[in-house]
Amino acid sequence: MSHHPFDQALQLMPGQAANTFAGATAPDYWNMVGPFGGYTAALAVRAVMQHPALLGEPVALTVNYAGATTQGPFTVTATPARTSRSTQHWVIALSQTDPTGQPEVAMTATIMTALKRDTWHANDMPMPVVTPVNAATKDRRDGAPVWFDRYDMRFVHGRSPAQFDGREASSVTQLWMRDEPPRPLDFASLTAMADVFYPRVWLRRAKRVAAGTVSMTTYFHASQAQLSDVGTGYLLGQAQAQAFRHGFFDQTAQLWSEDGTLLATSTQLVYYKE
Amino acid sequence: MSHHPFDQALQLMPGQAANTFAGATAPDYWNMVGPFGGYTAALAVRAVMQHPALLGEPVALTVNYAGATTQGPFTVTATPARTSRSTQHWVIALSQTDPTGQPEVAMTATIMTALKRDTWHANDMPMPVVTPVNAATKDRRDGAPVWFDRYDMRFVHGRSPAQFDGREASSVTQLWMRDEPPRPLDFASLTAMADVFYPRVWLRRAKRVAAGTVSMTTYFHASQAQLSDVGTGYLLGQAQAQAFRHGFFDQTAQLWSEDGTLLATSTQLVYYKE
Repeated sequence: MSHHPFDQALQLMPGQAANTFAGATAPDYWNMVGPFGGYTAALAVRAVMQHPALLGEPVALTVNYAGATTQGPFTVTATPARTSRSTQHWVIALSQTDPTGQPEVAMTATIMTALKRDTWHANDMPMPVVTPVNAATKDRRDGAPVWFDRYDMRFVHGRSPAQFDGREASSVTQLWMRDEPPRPLDFASLTAMADVFYPRVWLRRAKRVAAGTVSMTTYFHASQAQLSDVGTGYLLGQAQAQAFRHGFFDQTAQLWSEDGTLLATSTQLVYYKE
Repeated sequence: MSHHPFDQALQLMPGQAANTFAGATAPDYWNMVGPFGGYTAALAVRAVMQHPALLGEPVALTVNYAGATTQGPFTVTATPARTSRSTQHWVIALSQTDPTGQPEVAMTATIMTALKRDTWHANDMPMPVVTPVNAATKDRRDGAPVWFDRYDMRFVHGRSPAQFDGREASSVTQLWMRDEPPRPLDFASLTAMADVFYPRVWLRRAKRVAAGTVSMTTYFHASQAQLSDVGTGYLLGQAQAQAFRHGFFDQTAQLWSEDGTLLATSTQLVYYKE
C-alpha cells in the first residue's frame, strides 16, 4: 500500500456482507462542508476495482451526490448487476449511519467496466494550444479548502476571478494539474481530477454563490496501459459550462495527457443558489 | 390516456411490490435487435414521474444499457434513495425474466429530481444558425428501423452518408425533429429525442459497423412549463463525437427549442465493433 495521501484516503476494507467495503473520510481531501467530490467519486471506482468479480477496466462512471457526506466511517456497496463476456455493469452506493442509527445514502453511482480492445481510433477533440506546463505558474490560493493542496494546479486560462465584481465573462477554464505530491495516474486519480474545476458560475458571473456538484459522469477513453504511460506527468484539463437555469448549471470537461491523448471526457451538473 | 403510440408504449402499471411497475415493449419503437434506446430511457423517467413519492421534476438522468431488452413484458423498479427538502435521488432498474425464469437486469439508471426555482440564468451554448425547419426536408429512409417512423427528422447538417465509402469526415449532425404524429413535449419524449442521433462512427468513417449505446446521461435545463410552451413544435438537435478508442466513442448533444432555449444537454458512450 502506497503512503500517498490519496491511497491512504481511498483505503477500503472488505466488509462482512457481500459486495460491501468499509472506509472513512480523510482530512487531506476535505472541502468546505464535506469531502472533495472527486475523492468521493474515486471511492466508487476503487470499490469496483477491488471487487473480486471485476471484469475489465472502467469505461463509464456516473456519481450522484445525494446528501452530505460527514466526517467519519462509511460503507460502499458495489454490486455487479449484469455481466457479459466483455462488459460489466455495477450499481454502487455510499452510506453512512445517521444520528438515529439508520443507514443513509450519501452517494449513488453506476459504473460500466469492459475489456478494452484495439480498434480504429480517432480524437475529435484535439488538445488546445496553451502555455506549456513548464512555463505555467503553480497556483497558490489563500483560504482555499484543504484538498486544493493535494493538487499541483497551473491555470493557463480562466483562473478564478481576482475580483468578484459581477462582470460576466466566458466560462472556460484550462489548467495543467497532477497530484501533490506526484503519484502515478490510475483510474481513481483520473476520476478525481475530472472534478477539480471550481464552480463555473463563479467564473461566468465573477460572483461567489453557494454551489456544489450534484451529478457527474466520466467516460474513460484510456486503458490502464495508457495511464501507466502518463505516470506522474501533468494532465491538461478544460471545462466549460453550457446552460445555467433553475439553480443548476452543467459543464463539459476534457482531460488530455501532455502528449495530447484524450484520456477522459466528463460532464457534471452543479447546484447554485441564486 | 393519450392514444399516441409513445404514450401507449410507455404504459406502466403499478406492480404488487413497492416501487415496481409492469410494462411491455412496443413494436412501434423497435430498433434492430431491441427497443429504441431513447424509448427505454424514457421508461425510467416515466416510472419516476408516476411514483407517488415524486418530488419535483427531472434534472439529471443516467441510463446504462446492461444487456439486450427482448420483446415482451418487463418490470421497472424505481426506488427513492434519498430525499431532501428540494431534491430527490432515484435508483432504477429494468428487468426481464430470463429463459430459466430468473430476473435479469437489462438497464440500470439513476435520476435526480428537484423543485425548479427561478434564478439567474444564461445560455453558453447558443443555438447554431441553420436552415429553418420550414425549409428543411423531411428525411425518408428505406430499410430504416421501425422507430425512425415515429420521428419527423429534418437533417440540416451531417445526414447519414449517401455512400459508405470509408471517407473520413466531421462527426457533427444537426437536425430538426419532433414526434410523428406530433405530440406535446414532456420529459419522457425529450429523453427519447436526446437519443435519436445515429452512431457518430458511421458518419465519421462513412462506414457502417455494429454499434450501440451503452450509457447515456441527460441534463434537463427546462421546466415542465417551458416544455409546455414548446408544445408540438420542433427541436433542433446537435450531436458531435469527442473520442473513439478501444471499441467505444462518446458524443455530446444539445437540444434547443425553435426559439433558441437550450432544453437539454446530453452525452453518451457508444460501443462499436472494430
